[in-house]
Amino acid sequence: MTTLKDIGEQELIRRLLPFLHAHPMLKTGAGDDCAVVSAGDCDWVLTTDPLIENTHFLPDTEPERIGHKAAGRVLSDIAAMGARPLFLLINIAAPETETAERIEQVYAGASRLADRFGTAIIGGDVAKGPVFELHVFGIGSLPAGTALLRSGAKPGDRICVTGPLGGSFESGRHLDFLPRVPEGISLRECGAVNAMMDISDGLATDLRHILKQSKCGAELFSDQIPLNETASLENALCDGEDFELLFTTAAPEKITVRFHEIGVISDTPDLIRLHHPDGTITEPQTLAFEHFRSGPK
Amino acid sequence: MTTLKDIGEQELIRRLLPFLHAHPMLKTGAGDDCAVVSAGDCDWVLTTDPLIENTHFLPDTEPERIGHKAAGRVLSDIAAMGARPLFLLINIAAPETETAERIEQVYAGASRLADRFGTAIIGGDVAKGPVFELHVFGIGSLPAGTALLRSGAKPGDRICVTGPLGGSFESGRHLDFLPRVPEGISLRECGAVNAMMDISDGLATDLRHILKQSKCGAELFSDQIPLNETASLENALCDGEDFELLFTTAAPEKITVRFHEIGVISDTPDLIRLHHPDGTITEPQTLAFEHFRSGPK
Repeated sequence: MTTLKDIGEQELIRRLLPFLHAHPMLKTGAGDDCAVVSAGDCDWVLTTDPLIENTHFLPDTEPERIGHKAAGRVLSDIAAMGARPLFLLINIAAPETETAERIEQVYAGASRLADRFGTAIIGGDVAKGPVFELHVFGIGSLPAGTALLRSGAKPGDRICVTGPLGGSFESGRHLDFLPRVPEGISLRECGAVNAMMDISDGLATDLRHILKQSKCGAELFSDQIPLNETASLENALCDGEDFELLFTTAAPEKITVRFHEIGVISDTPDLIRLHHPDGTITEPQTLAFEHFRSGPK
Repeated sequence: MTTLKDIGEQELIRRLLPFLHAHPMLKTGAGDDCAVVSAGDCDWVLTTDPLIENTHFLPDTEPERIGHKAAGRVLSDIAAMGARPLFLLINIAAPETETAERIEQVYAGASRLADRFGTAIIGGDVAKGPVFELHVFGIGSLPAGTALLRSGAKPGDRICVTGPLGGSFESGRHLDFLPRVPEGISLRECGAVNAMMDISDGLATDLRHILKQSKCGAELFSDQIPLNETASLENALCDGEDFELLFTTAAPEKITVRFHEIGVISDTPDLIRLHHPDGTITEPQTLAFEHFRSGPK
């Protein structure tokens, strides 16, 4: 038998892929920020995210911020497709000793953030479980065929991010971030973006997803990567939970939101080269958090 | 502070309702088997169900049956609207000591049942948590405006179920049941059903949901309630997890699936009267399982 600690999250997902089947209405399945399905004139994007005590937040985290983060992660996945978030459903598991007040405050935090984007929480379920846990299911929509996927990057595309990276945990920003919903919609509508995703596992790991699915590489310029206060380049590459959008474009002059150009897509599959101001070039390792494992992949 | 043990699942849900907001595309919100939303020519139904070790199954339950039950509960909710199930997304939480083989078998069980109804598992997520846990999100579709709700029952309607009730836990049927997907679709298409739901908490509790939302009562005939082998009338009223469909109709002659007529809708709000062959009449108590509490509500 093989434990999850032995193989880690990514290998587990790979083993489960054979159970995800095709469907005539399914346009994009597992491997992007959301699944994309056909819904008449529109496509709908579907995604889920768990938020588990002691894994994603601490027992003393303020309840409203727990709700904010749970909803925000899903809204960020929907934004990463360029879609408009419509609905959330929230499952809660908790021990019987949990207080109703804490759960109400968690819901208040999720509801306040969702409201901001015209998104309604429309259902869910509650059940008894060993720790406090949320599972959020999100649905968004966009005109048919316009979802921005991870697979669309092309050599020569500029690589861009919507804001500074790194230090999300230390600063508490992972509990307060604003998902880039209007930015995602605007980036889709401008028609100039070839690939997009949100940065949840760190720039180095997430950029690799785009490179792998687009069969290309990246040349990054270390002094152009925007850093949060107190964050190092290493933080920006590896910390994760920034929830900024990472996208590629052949026409940066058409981009309608604030962004930072950090590099160029190359035609060397899977290779990330990081150019430093002193002329040296390094290849950043992927050191992001992976569920069930610790340390480097 | 009020614990969940103090107030129980139903009161917790009532307290969370203020956080569920209206949306122009939302047709039916919390309180039915699924939420119903507008999706062009169709309506889509959306639902979620948790399945938690030691709450919904035991550590030694065969993994394929865990997956079967997790998918089956969601497919049953979709069937209860008269909808065709399209997609499932599955979140899994598990400790790092969990084996990949067990999770693969759980997925195999869910996938095999979903396949049977042309439903595809199209995504989900995995994360580290204290016990093995599944959260399944389901999406189904039906022609706009045709969803069968709990609120449509009318005095004089016959009350019907699609199969025998009671003893689901003792027999292990709660792990093997076949959700009534084709029956649900057929009951919608025949045009003669006024209200429908699935029996997950027991006939007495679930019928009360229809009565409350339809503002009417019920006269049941104890000798007409179909019982599973070894099940008593008490079992049929209170056990739950039968996953048969409960529906009301003014035209039983138009019903196209196998069913049992068990009573008549009355105009006395919320009153259930149970008529026995000896001429006595009782009012069954609601004794169903409620998360976070034990014993009678």
